[in-house]
Amino acid sequence: MKKIMLALVAASATLASFSAAAQFAKPEDAIKYRKAALTVTAAHFGRMGAMAQGKVAFDAKAASDNAEIVVAMSKLPWAAFGEGTDVGDTKAKPEIWKQNAKFKEAAEKFQAESVKLAAAAKSGKEDAFKSAFSATAGTCNSCHDDFRAK
Amino acid sequence: MKKIMLALVAASATLASFSAAAQFAKPEDAIKYRKAALTVTAAHFGRMGAMAQGKVAFDAKAASDNAEIVVAMSKLPWAAFGEGTDVGDTKAKPEIWKQNAKFKEAAEKFQAESVKLAAAAKSGKEDAFKSAFSATAGTCNSCHDDFRAK
Repeated sequence: MKKIMLALVAASATLASFSAAAQFAKPEDAIKYRKAALTVTAAHFGRMGAMAQGKVAFDAKAASDNAEIVVAMSKLPWAAFGEGTDVGDTKAKPEIWKQNAKFKEAAEKFQAESVKLAAAAKSGKEDAFKSAFSATAGTCNSCHDDFRAK
Repeated sequence: MKKIMLALVAASATLASFSAAAQFAKPEDAIKYRKAALTVTAAHFGRMGAMAQGKVAFDAKAASDNAEIVVAMSKLPWAAFGEGTDVGDTKAKPEIWKQNAKFKEAAEKFQAESVKLAAAAKSGKEDAFKSAFSATAGTCNSCHDDFRAK
């Protein structure tokens, strides 16, 4: 009986991880996808950065448009960090899987700060935008420090 | 007087094209960005394709989630097909710039069909979803045939 239960537990664990991985046919597809999502994110985040740093005049409409895209993009990469996607053409550190709860928390912080950034951009208040931008950028940097190889 | 006006026209044309290109520091950044946006789009479109082809059971929630991401992504790549981004690591055909109105129309058709696809997925009606998926896939294929090298 115990043997059967252990077999069932093992089988359902396999199914669960297969189901998560099934979104991507191969590990390299997941790696390509998450890099692509983060490339798009970085482009739009960078446009806000130019405003936050005063290189480009603050434009509430442009900032808000870019922030909304970052909010949408911020949800995407994480499902592509499944088991077996730690090797290949990736800077992902093993800590992503070893400290997975911490990684998920970092991803969630970024998502939450992005939402606040979009609200600040939409408000048209430059100071609020700059401060929210800085908070969001902090979540990018700390996650990269901990979970992305140089 | 005529000379001054011509100079002004030339200057404003330069500014306009600079403004569009200014979104990306270098042509290769634009190329990387648009490929990334289309990679993300293709991943989510493919998940709907598996349902449309009956390889995976139709799931209105999953289909709708993927379709909403495609709708958001469908707006992004086109601004990255600016002047000077026709060479480099890209399959973009010269027709994109030679027949730019036709290219824009193709991009708009894809965006419009994606919106209909999201509505069909949300309705939970599998037949409507399959038919809207097929119409959207048609816009991908015809644009790729005309504007993307093999």
